[in-house]
Amino acid sequence: MFEVNQNYAKLPGSYLFANIGRKVKAFSEANPDKKIIRLGIGDVTEPLTPAVVKALKDASEDMAHAATFHGYPDYEGAYFLRHAIVENEYKARGLDISEDEIFVNDGAKSDSSDLSDIFSLNNKVAVCDPVYPVYVNTNALCGRAGDYIAATERWSNIIYMPCTEQNAFLPELPTETPDIIYLCFPNNPTGMAITRDQLQVWVDYARKVGAVIIYDDAYEAYITEDNVPHSIYECEGAQECAIEMRSFSKNAGFTGVRLGYTVVPKAIKSAQGDSLNKIWAMHQEMKFNGVSYIIQKAGEAVYSEQGKKETRDMVAFYQNNAKTIVNGLTEAGYTCYGGVNSPYIWLKTPNGMTSWQFFDHLLNTVNVVGTPGSGFGPSGEGFFRLTAFNSQANIKEALERIKNA
Amino acid sequence: MFEVNQNYAKLPGSYLFANIGRKVKAFSEANPDKKIIRLGIGDVTEPLTPAVVKALKDASEDMAHAATFHGYPDYEGAYFLRHAIVENEYKARGLDISEDEIFVNDGAKSDSSDLSDIFSLNNKVAVCDPVYPVYVNTNALCGRAGDYIAATERWSNIIYMPCTEQNAFLPELPTETPDIIYLCFPNNPTGMAITRDQLQVWVDYARKVGAVIIYDDAYEAYITEDNVPHSIYECEGAQECAIEMRSFSKNAGFTGVRLGYTVVPKAIKSAQGDSLNKIWAMHQEMKFNGVSYIIQKAGEAVYSEQGKKETRDMVAFYQNNAKTIVNGLTEAGYTCYGGVNSPYIWLKTPNGMTSWQFFDHLLNTVNVVGTPGSGFGPSGEGFFRLTAFNSQANIKEALERIKNA
Repeated sequence: MFEVNQNYAKLPGSYLFANIGRKVKAFSEANPDKKIIRLGIGDVTEPLTPAVVKALKDASEDMAHAATFHGYPDYEGAYFLRHAIVENEYKARGLDISEDEIFVNDGAKSDSSDLSDIFSLNNKVAVCDPVYPVYVNTNALCGRAGDYIAATERWSNIIYMPCTEQNAFLPELPTETPDIIYLCFPNNPTGMAITRDQLQVWVDYARKVGAVIIYDDAYEAYITEDNVPHSIYECEGAQECAIEMRSFSKNAGFTGVRLGYTVVPKAIKSAQGDSLNKIWAMHQEMKFNGVSYIIQKAGEAVYSEQGKKETRDMVAFYQNNAKTIVNGLTEAGYTCYGGVNSPYIWLKTPNGMTSWQFFDHLLNTVNVVGTPGSGFGPSGEGFFRLTAFNSQANIKEALERIKNA
Repeated sequence: MFEVNQNYAKLPGSYLFANIGRKVKAFSEANPDKKIIRLGIGDVTEPLTPAVVKALKDASEDMAHAATFHGYPDYEGAYFLRHAIVENEYKARGLDISEDEIFVNDGAKSDSSDLSDIFSLNNKVAVCDPVYPVYVNTNALCGRAGDYIAATERWSNIIYMPCTEQNAFLPELPTETPDIIYLCFPNNPTGMAITRDQLQVWVDYARKVGAVIIYDDAYEAYITEDNVPHSIYECEGAQECAIEMRSFSKNAGFTGVRLGYTVVPKAIKSAQGDSLNKIWAMHQEMKFNGVSYIIQKAGEAVYSEQGKKETRDMVAFYQNNAKTIVNGLTEAGYTCYGGVNSPYIWLKTPNGMTSWQFFDHLLNTVNVVGTPGSGFGPSGEGFFRLTAFNSQANIKEALERIKNA
């Protein structure tokens, strides 16, 4: 008789953001008169910009005529989009990435999860703690993570790299050697960035020990400081050891549109000489059927002159929100991190409350939703993530409410 | 040092349709003056219908305003679309499927591949031969298929169920007991259908041995005969043993739009009592971020009164093409199967040619592209798949060319 993948039973709970969604829904149904302000899941609130909306409509019209109709998309992404990405994200910064190293996807979460498929189950994974739960879950479900130890809130076969106030939320090189290293900078959830020199240390380390870095660069658009790299490929040798994941969600507001991409350089080779670029291309051809033509055209429009200006304005709007939150909470006596190169603010919970106690407190007393830090791992305990994704009015009201909570 | 998933090296080649795409591209570049007619990959050619295009544009406009903007979609699909599917595909046929048993995806290929993730690696898989390659590849890549045996063109740990002229292309119950059975009817690649009574035998068998059936129902819209089931849930007890995969690609022309769905009934339980519906919901929450709002609204429009009429007309157009191909080739002395409840015609290669010889012959002499039957498995050798997806003019010209090849 068929059996379920036994790793599902090992999971300590359901997906963090699905959990929070259910909690908030229950509260909202029980208190229909309360106006909840959501600064929890990192979901954008500003509408798509005119250049993007026009591209969506034009592409829809293309699909209405046989001469301009598009059937199955290319598995790896349309050339027009891969080319626009190469020109604007890489060549414009002097980085030599080519179109056949870009793989377009339906949002970075899919590849955050699926990239794990192309590696041996014997490979050892290192993650930061706190960490975006998808990296850990996908390795747990395929059996690479070992067993979940409730007492430590950690998986037996994963190397955890704590990111705490003591190390300014920057992981230290692990003592045990990993094969796969997940890094996310600017970081989710802490909102803290890494400098180019600090990231170079990781690239050098990965090359020395033969590890691959899976670099989550979803928040790149929020970087304001000059010494913070926009791409891991700004570090020497990174093309030989690093995969980079990017998204249109946080710069162009595409959370509901679904578009991202992954860079897998041709120079990355396994111990056996396998090209990760070729292996990932095979993966996508066999397991994925490409991204909607209409959505890819919207992505291309982000790189038009008008699109670039609109995107900069949208990011500036959220950046200003982040600044407002950091300044407001700091004034009110809170200890805050992040928010400078990131839309996330990492807040120390007051009065020794746990992360979930503070979550419940804010939800129940002032109807503000954030994300409990401990949901991202045990080193997140005592912290709380707020996002800058909301209207100015809601951000200001949420601040007032939190101050009075 | 990191290593690649060793199962990639076991694969006998790259993905069939990617392979064919490269062959055709090479021919086309070497012969820019030749007008190639493509009846290979099952890709639609008719434009999206007016109701769908209007929905795409309206939804794009929704995304342009804060009040109607949509961020992250629901992991399992928007209620409006799940509801439309339930009402039109199931309740309208007297089938009791509920909204929370529907999981919307970005096209059926993703789930054809990913459903394998939720089962134990110890489970034994049975597939038809010939078969849509994705079912086999995904089981091969996770290690469930064993080793590829070049001499037999089969994987050591997969149960193959030959579908040949002798058994009218209907698989017989396997002698070795499987845990997971992949069935696709109307079938890809043979274009042959199964009757309700014949499918009931499989449902009864699956319940008896405790197997789960993964039923690929992508071609349901092409059914013309009354005794052919539109859903496996027309069979008694199927809700306790069968997952059904559906797609908007072949009825509404969405190959380039990317939309499908999977039905996982709540009544399916594993030996240990696990609910597959819950497990699949966890899978989607952890590894997927839902389908674009804009695309889901296009799917909803397929079920409007206008959308239903347009879809019927589009399917009728391709059905007529299928009839034209079957009649034309039969007249010309070819032996043809399929094409009655399916957009696929399964053609016996002439003069003892192998499938690939016939592929090369047609491409080189008359510039018509089909799919070699052996690409779907060894029992497909000596056959060739043609699709009805093209303009009437191209279908007629392709027929003339094949007759003269």
